[in-house]
Amino acid sequence: QNQSQQLPVDLEPEFEGTIQNISSPTGREAILTCSVKNLGRYKVGWLRASDQTVLALQGRVVTHNSRISVVHEDFRTWRLRIRQLRESDRGCYMCQINASPMKKQIGCIDVQVRCVPSAHANIRAQHA
Amino acid sequence: QNQSQQLPVDLEPEFEGTIQNISSPTGREAILTCSVKNLGRYKVGWLRASDQTVLALQGRVVTHNSRISVVHEDFRTWRLRIRQLRESDRGCYMCQINASPMKKQIGCIDVQVRCVPSAHANIRAQHA
Repeated sequence: QNQSQQLPVDLEPEFEGTIQNISSPTGREAILTCSVKNLGRYKVGWLRASDQTVLALQGRVVTHNSRISVVHEDFRTWRLRIRQLRESDRGCYMCQINASPMKKQIGCIDVQVRCVPSAHANIRAQHA
Repeated sequence: QNQSQQLPVDLEPEFEGTIQNISSPTGREAILTCSVKNLGRYKVGWLRASDQTVLALQGRVVTHNSRISVVHEDFRTWRLRIRQLRESDRGCYMCQINASPMKKQIGCIDVQVRCVPSAHANIRAQHA
């Protein structure tokens, strides 16, 4: 009798752990992983933190950048994948859950630029 | 012959004018209007500027806040409407076009709080 009077517990979405930062050379790929539990009816978005560009909402990539994709497993593990890394990809990315209040986690990508040996750089500069 | 060799001009989306700031009392509504031309295949998003919460993408509201809606006319005029204004709605909102690079405009809402006459405030304070 008592059990039937209990209201269902509406679990709030939460992050599990934190997003691990990534360091990867130009041309390779970087994957940021955001782990969420109890997502329920909420959605996960990815934004570029520096300028608040919305990159993706749930599995749908909204930015017109074919190097970016999002995959998820069981609505718990959300991966932002950036292929063929460029120096301009360096920076931090926000994983956002559209709860009230909004919840966010930040993960950063460091893009290592392969150095051109200085002798080659000089030859290039002369031919430019 | 010359005409057939001309490539079609791929017009970039642009804002037309700026978003007018709004001042409105609590309980009323506020509408921010973002005007865009040449939207093409791109999308318009609305974000709360202070914390980068994604509120809506195209006509689809993603925040779980029933006081917020978005309407558009001909993909040119995009209106963010917040009903039953609360003091917490005060702040700035970003209209974002997901072009590369991303384009944004900011509009702000000032929520006027109706003052409680000081005599009443005192009575309230005594009963609190």
